[in-house]
Amino acid sequence: MHYQDVLDEVAAHVAPHIGRGQVAQYIPALAAVDPDRFGIALADVDGNVTGVGDWERPFSVQSISKAFGLALVLAQDGEKLWRRVGREPSGNPFNSLVQLEHENGIPRNPFINAGALVVTDRLHSLTGDASTTMLDFLRAESGNPDLAFDPVVAESESGHGDRNAALAHFMASYGNLDNPVPTVLEHYFWQCSIEMSCRDLALAGGFLARHGLRADGSRLLSRREAKRVNAVMLTCGTYDAAGDFAYRVGLPGKSGVGGGIIAVIPGRCTLCVWSPGLDARGNSVAGVAALDHFTTVTEWSVF
Amino acid sequence: MHYQDVLDEVAAHVAPHIGRGQVAQYIPALAAVDPDRFGIALADVDGNVTGVGDWERPFSVQSISKAFGLALVLAQDGEKLWRRVGREPSGNPFNSLVQLEHENGIPRNPFINAGALVVTDRLHSLTGDASTTMLDFLRAESGNPDLAFDPVVAESESGHGDRNAALAHFMASYGNLDNPVPTVLEHYFWQCSIEMSCRDLALAGGFLARHGLRADGSRLLSRREAKRVNAVMLTCGTYDAAGDFAYRVGLPGKSGVGGGIIAVIPGRCTLCVWSPGLDARGNSVAGVAALDHFTTVTEWSVF
Amino acid sequence: MHYQDVLDEVAAHVAPHIGRGQVAQYIPALAAVDPDRFGIALADVDGNVTGVGDWERPFSVQSISKAFGLALVLAQDGEKLWRRVGREPSGNPFNSLVQLEHENGIPRNPFINAGALVVTDRLHSLTGDASTTMLDFLRAESGNPDLAFDPVVAESESGHGDRNAALAHFMASYGNLDNPVPTVLEHYFWQCSIEMSCRDLALAGGFLARHGLRADGSRLLSRREAKRVNAVMLTCGTYDAAGDFAYRVGLPGKSGVGGGIIAVIPGRCTLCVWSPGLDARGNSVAGVAALDHFTTVTEWSVF
Amino acid sequence: MHYQDVLDEVAAHVAPHIGRGQVAQYIPALAAVDPDRFGIALADVDGNVTGVGDWERPFSVQSISKAFGLALVLAQDGEKLWRRVGREPSGNPFNSLVQLEHENGIPRNPFINAGALVVTDRLHSLTGDASTTMLDFLRAESGNPDLAFDPVVAESESGHGDRNAALAHFMASYGNLDNPVPTVLEHYFWQCSIEMSCRDLALAGGFLARHGLRADGSRLLSRREAKRVNAVMLTCGTYDAAGDFAYRVGLPGKSGVGGGIIAVIPGRCTLCVWSPGLDARGNSVAGVAALDHFTTVTEWSVF
Repeated sequence: MHYQDVLDEVAAHVAPHIGRGQVAQYIPALAAVDPDRFGIALADVDGNVTGVGDWERPFSVQSISKAFGLALVLAQDGEKLWRRVGREPSGNPFNSLVQLEHENGIPRNPFINAGALVVTDRLHSLTGDASTTMLDFLRAESGNPDLAFDPVVAESESGHGDRNAALAHFMASYGNLDNPVPTVLEHYFWQCSIEMSCRDLALAGGFLARHGLRADGSRLLSRREAKRVNAVMLTCGTYDAAGDFAYRVGLPGKSGVGGGIIAVIPGRCTLCVWSPGLDARGNSVAGVAALDHFTTVTEWSVF
Repeated sequence: MHYQDVLDEVAAHVAPHIGRGQVAQYIPALAAVDPDRFGIALADVDGNVTGVGDWERPFSVQSISKAFGLALVLAQDGEKLWRRVGREPSGNPFNSLVQLEHENGIPRNPFINAGALVVTDRLHSLTGDASTTMLDFLRAESGNPDLAFDPVVAESESGHGDRNAALAHFMASYGNLDNPVPTVLEHYFWQCSIEMSCRDLALAGGFLARHGLRADGSRLLSRREAKRVNAVMLTCGTYDAAGDFAYRVGLPGKSGVGGGIIAVIPGRCTLCVWSPGLDARGNSVAGVAALDHFTTVTEWSVF
Repeated sequence: MHYQDVLDEVAAHVAPHIGRGQVAQYIPALAAVDPDRFGIALADVDGNVTGVGDWERPFSVQSISKAFGLALVLAQDGEKLWRRVGREPSGNPFNSLVQLEHENGIPRNPFINAGALVVTDRLHSLTGDASTTMLDFLRAESGNPDLAFDPVVAESESGHGDRNAALAHFMASYGNLDNPVPTVLEHYFWQCSIEMSCRDLALAGGFLARHGLRADGSRLLSRREAKRVNAVMLTCGTYDAAGDFAYRVGLPGKSGVGGGIIAVIPGRCTLCVWSPGLDARGNSVAGVAALDHFTTVTEWSVF
Repeated sequence: MHYQDVLDEVAAHVAPHIGRGQVAQYIPALAAVDPDRFGIALADVDGNVTGVGDWERPFSVQSISKAFGLALVLAQDGEKLWRRVGREPSGNPFNSLVQLEHENGIPRNPFINAGALVVTDRLHSLTGDASTTMLDFLRAESGNPDLAFDPVVAESESGHGDRNAALAHFMASYGNLDNPVPTVLEHYFWQCSIEMSCRDLALAGGFLARHGLRADGSRLLSRREAKRVNAVMLTCGTYDAAGDFAYRVGLPGKSGVGGGIIAVIPGRCTLCVWSPGLDARGNSVAGVAALDHFTTVTEWSVF
């Protein structure tokens, strides 16, 4: 199968979906993005990368950064993280705070905001600088030394960060943060603000398809750990739509409100798709449609 | 790889776990089961079946029946079912009723009790006899014409069925049941009371590994639908432990409080393991350990 | 102060409110009531009764019966009831089932439906016939031997009773009902279906103003117990609007979806107002306005 | 009735309860209080004050300040406050955050912490200095110019304030705070840290018994408004035990975790009782027992 042909076919198929949905509105820096963008890239396990459309144009990674944060903490800390965060799907958005309250400040999984704040807190304790650690890792894996934070986005997140501040203070009240709340929030917002293209992200997520091996062949995660990150992505990676994503796409994936989604076909390749229009649950409309069609055409679902 | 050797190795590995956990206590008929039983069977896509231990001893399928109910309704009704039941993981047990109330009587997914009651209601409307339809299907797929309901178990379920009655009446108050509550409950309890062995279940679940083809080669589900049942099993198949099951085992699976679990390796085989001791979330302790070890040894996780 | 003048003034004041709101729609027998009815009656502690408007026309007491049920159980059982039902306000409707689940089948208070089902269950155990016991009591206190159940309403409640059935089965699953679910539901629906006029109800509630003494001078409740029933009425008597009712009216009260409300001025009198149009929380629009104006004019709030 | 005799009798009656319960532990400054203290004071509507035991020893008012904050805002703002905070009982502690989330950042009532933060925010906007405004008012009403904040308590609250910070940020995320979160928290903590004796508090709360008139005869609240503050105290003033407090004591009351409780007999007097040992719901064990006995002896409940 020729990847370029498949991606061309996918792009043609989803063209009617591009521009549908709502661009994220909660911060001005995201609201200004052109809703008609669409790009998709595929990086095979050997690091060959192919793409279509706006696949080399940077966008805000937002929650996709949570997948990398989880991998970086697991790589250093192993299973210890699970004392402070669960790995079960979170049910629905309505639960975010009631769940924390009901379960004594332990977030349901590392991909809801509360869980990602705990992961950021831990990464910061382990490395002394959570956001720079992540940026360095992403530069190395993508082979793109120009990756950078977008300070306008980070600032904007911080200015609209009351809900994340509430989550962080709430977990702090249960003793589940080691660093000061403002420090954790700052690094969390910086991680979300990293700008990357589909190309960059498909390459950076290559270790998930290579069962834990980094781009330079060194091992980040054991095979077992890599499988586990993929499992958490499949069950928790797309907000409240994880069941629907598994049902339609059938691949481990992690989405962000910037409109990007990465998806993994273990042993074969990593995909990244981007289109800013979001559905009601915060996932890219054209992005989900593209991955749905990709797995239908290729029959490469994990199921 | 020789299946028999792998199963022997798995059985040896989990021997220390057998007898751990608690046998289901809520009905006498289940509480009387010997906790030291353990069996595992593997049926490949060609219908060859291998097993170890108590793999030919019948046990109560309980919630494993929910996977078959879902498949039977999808086979006749296609996507229409999803108007009446969701396909997202349910979060935690605490949510069962608040979720129903919050979402106007639409159960979160077909594998929580509320969802399975809706599936049973629909199967009954489609066939005129939900429980007999399921029994006939299981007899055909397992090649075992002696499969039967256990009337003692069914009676016992009914006698302890206030919680399911509450769920059914609550959904009825939202107009989400077509048949009378007592009818739906009766067929639901009968389905749960079917007695099958690991051998029977591994064979009966073969269509999930064969991308929808039944034992006789006829098609029950389209490839896309079969993938979807597997996706729902992975995200919702093991009660509140779906995330943990995906993390440890990495296969679509469906468990029952009788101590059985079926698991699917799409394109390759269906497994069934049985041991009555349950963990706090209702899944077989030795059963999960066996599947965990199986996927570690074979590296056949979907991730 | 001349009661008749005050009631005339109140009736004149609330005239613009009569007909506002929605007549209860969930059962046909209630939906057919003329929305323009309005009556108010006042019974002093000596049993003298005065009224205005439709004060002698019978209507369906519905949840007002819950106040009498509580008094009848306390009279026989004293404080033991509180092991099975709480006496805290219930928060909001959203809590009805989640609260029961969270608190192991113990309803928050005797005036939410779940709590009233427990009270009915207990009254039935104590007397052998909960609904007849209540009817006999109401006939005696009102001096009206013609009081009767409305079989059409009782039948209609039963036919639309899935939500109450869900509550009853749910409590039964926690062991908090002693009688069979259908028995408890039947007596509960019969109690709700009793037809009484404002005159009847003002007289029947006289013991609450007389610190526990019945119409014939015998003691139903101790002074302390009578105070307690009034306290529960004030904090829990008007569904989710108890705080608002206390704020506006400032009297112990109990409302029903038939449009009636009884209110108590301890040591002085009992009021009953009726007008079928309900606000969003199920309380009579003109009824609350009438009581609000009554306490403003008389300055007889308990505060 | 001679007040001094009644208070002596009450003190004798509750002697066995003194020292029971747990002194508040969450901040060191409160945990150090002697658990065996007990005092009670009664101020009649003419400003005559009587007391027993430690009735002149200052303690930390904590949440009792919420009653004064509500009165001060209503005095200036009238009914407008109710757009930003409800006046319904809050149900149970479990609801604190889920309720805020479910109802879009509008706290259930002004006496739960979230509601008091909104009241403080409003008082600060109206006066430019919420905590000094309250202190000045309390000095004037108690006739004690030496009343002061305890900076150790205020500092200690702030250092353990993650949960209140979570609530404040959460409401800010819904736009329900006008001032910066740190400002609101600071004034809230200062208000809670005010030190007053039973004598001071009984006098300061005199306007609630005088239907809104201040100590100097000027009007703070209209009669209607004073009635309303009392109504909110009765339905919401003792945390999750408002129903139980109404049931046992039958008076409007407001408690604090410092062990104090004020209670109002409209038209007659204001009481303040203090004893540091708290029950599981945060109310003074000996304090509730004293008020229970007081209303039993005097028969002065509002019911």
